[in-house]
Amino acid sequence: MRVEIISIGDELLIGQVVNSNATWMGRELTQQGFNITAVTSVGDQGDDIIRSIDHAFERADIILLTGGVGPTTDDITKHTLCRYFHTALEFNDDVLQQIESLFLSRNIQLNQLTRKQAYVPVGATVIQNKVGTAPILWFRKEEKVLISMPGVPFEMRTTMRDDIIPRLQTEFQAERYLQRTYLVAGITESALATRLAGFETLLPAGFTLAYLPSFGFIRLRLSVWGEMRKPEMKQQGRKLKLLLGKEFVARSEKKIEALLGEKLRKQQLTVSTAESCTGGYIAHLITAVPGASDYFEGSIVSYDNRIKEELLDVDKQTIERDGVVSREVVEQMARNVAHKLKTECSIAVSGIMGPEGGTREKPVGTVWICTKQADELIAVEYHVGSSREENIERTANLAIIQLIKMLTRKLVKEISR
Amino acid sequence: MRVEIISIGDELLIGQVVNSNATWMGRELTQQGFNITAVTSVGDQGDDIIRSIDHAFERADIILLTGGVGPTTDDITKHTLCRYFHTALEFNDDVLQQIESLFLSRNIQLNQLTRKQAYVPVGATVIQNKVGTAPILWFRKEEKVLISMPGVPFEMRTTMRDDIIPRLQTEFQAERYLQRTYLVAGITESALATRLAGFETLLPAGFTLAYLPSFGFIRLRLSVWGEMRKPEMKQQGRKLKLLLGKEFVARSEKKIEALLGEKLRKQQLTVSTAESCTGGYIAHLITAVPGASDYFEGSIVSYDNRIKEELLDVDKQTIERDGVVSREVVEQMARNVAHKLKTECSIAVSGIMGPEGGTREKPVGTVWICTKQADELIAVEYHVGSSREENIERTANLAIIQLIKMLTRKLVKEISR
Repeated sequence: MRVEIISIGDELLIGQVVNSNATWMGRELTQQGFNITAVTSVGDQGDDIIRSIDHAFERADIILLTGGVGPTTDDITKHTLCRYFHTALEFNDDVLQQIESLFLSRNIQLNQLTRKQAYVPVGATVIQNKVGTAPILWFRKEEKVLISMPGVPFEMRTTMRDDIIPRLQTEFQAERYLQRTYLVAGITESALATRLAGFETLLPAGFTLAYLPSFGFIRLRLSVWGEMRKPEMKQQGRKLKLLLGKEFVARSEKKIEALLGEKLRKQQLTVSTAESCTGGYIAHLITAVPGASDYFEGSIVSYDNRIKEELLDVDKQTIERDGVVSREVVEQMARNVAHKLKTECSIAVSGIMGPEGGTREKPVGTVWICTKQADELIAVEYHVGSSREENIERTANLAIIQLIKMLTRKLVKEISR
Repeated sequence: MRVEIISIGDELLIGQVVNSNATWMGRELTQQGFNITAVTSVGDQGDDIIRSIDHAFERADIILLTGGVGPTTDDITKHTLCRYFHTALEFNDDVLQQIESLFLSRNIQLNQLTRKQAYVPVGATVIQNKVGTAPILWFRKEEKVLISMPGVPFEMRTTMRDDIIPRLQTEFQAERYLQRTYLVAGITESALATRLAGFETLLPAGFTLAYLPSFGFIRLRLSVWGEMRKPEMKQQGRKLKLLLGKEFVARSEKKIEALLGEKLRKQQLTVSTAESCTGGYIAHLITAVPGASDYFEGSIVSYDNRIKEELLDVDKQTIERDGVVSREVVEQMARNVAHKLKTECSIAVSGIMGPEGGTREKPVGTVWICTKQADELIAVEYHVGSSREENIERTANLAIIQLIKMLTRKLVKEISR
């Protein structure tokens, strides 16, 4: 089943917003065994939309369209689909009722413009939108389908999860898709590929091993089609985990910050951060997870050295002797932030993110990360890249993974006091 | 000049990375007066790439290709372009020299795989890559051009700015593109459109007004072609600014966090943040700007209420009486963080980001933001949306804009002690 995504909206072309919808859909569908072959963004122009649909139908079985379904005049997807499928709009009472109940629950008055959302193309199957006004439209073209849905991320995600993916599975997937995802850190992609070359060669027919690298870690996805291959999957998975050795972090598809949250909650631990070079980004990642208040207490962002001394009680002489990017300083930061914020665990980072600030001994990209749990401290020196944006991202990920490894009793490079 | 972008790489289809390259290119090119008509992402498959190029040439004058130009076997763009343009590879000494000097400066040994980067298609104009190994290739097809460049963001951005955009301007733009961008906040897009309807109708021929909404603010871009229209641009710009009234924040294309940094640096002021619901995200935005250490000192992320009392000295009785999401609390947070971190300015936020934590009186989306400069405090209540991710983003933007307005002596809704 080849899938193509068409994202509609001028804002995507002029660089106003990132096409995060396509990324989300790509990830979810790939995880369910669908094969995405192209993603196209086009503006709110009927001719451009039609040309994109034509091209997509040349190669794909499933076309997913997002955007351009609002009630205002610049939203033309519905009319364009009528043109494409040679059909017309008709009023749909069920859709109106759904919109009315939605508005009632939000205590808003229904206006004429919104009422127009209840007009749907004749011949399309209508799926109710439980969280918005634009109905989801499901068109058939011989053996193929085209589904039009809202571009509002929350509405798109809700209908994709609840309606569209289950229906596509029923209709297009005769077999079950099995997969296991392994989080790996502390090894480059090429070194990992070399280590796993033999394993890959010996994989039973139908098995696929995909490398999904991020800044600071790699995900490996082992997959195969068919319920009856479960025992083999278990066996291959065990073999793979053994090969991953100490670089194995966890078996999980979750974001690493959500995985950290899960571990902390399970072990009933709390965490705080003391951040220099990451400027609060680690705290942001941790708190972006809903429910983070169960385990996250707070953070001290000591961007200026003075703050490290005054708020985190880092010893002035240590800074003068070892420099702020040093084992001693991050250890003091981790210990003191946990003490001040009364948390069992903590993360402390200090490094040089660039473009300025590097020296011969400590070039841009030098980072010390210390993680703490109870009385144990682990401090590791890393060398990240040369671009500021990437360095901040990579450092935050490395710090989160270091704490996950510590919480799951995995060996981190170096154990100190 | 219609431009289409083709982004190559499996990682874009499976949702592993967001296509931020296309967003960056779309923004830069639009600002220079180019018209982006489509963005397509395809995998590392020769046939898919060729089909995309074919489709793009149907409608565009300029095709920009990124990705698939690394030295490993899965990078097939160069070979695919040879197939498309019916040409072959030849060794290019200049490219090899460029790569050698790059490796020398980084103190790395050149290997055989990297040497292969010096093979380029016969007939293509070669532009040297100053920051990477893959040369930039410029192909002609009648009046049209196709340019292939690396997908590594830093390499792509460098060559786009230094080489590609200037050359495209020389070749495709007979006229100069004039534009002014206005940052507007505190008004919805539809209210703004209503206010500016008359202005838009009376705009001289050739002038365009574009609305670029973000979370918490809107950018307005006024543009026209031709150097000789400068006086008109000045006149229309003045008229527009007058109409924007107190909702006008600044004339700038910069990110708001960079704009804030510019204002702080100019006025030689320093800033700190006290963050509850944004969990360090405002500090992260501020420190993502290179050179932020000139004006940013640090932050206290008081996610838990206890931390508000213990680290920020917020009065316990105030919290009990007014709740943590209140004017009194954010005022104390702003005052105390500035005092503790010894900064002239500060930002404090407290709110309910959801999905949990809302009450009847204070539903999800309720936020108090206080900004401080010298002895002045401004505290404003906002109501953001219902999705956690968006709420954090919107709150951070609103806070940054509130401080920019304060620093530029713009009227904020409400002034308090």
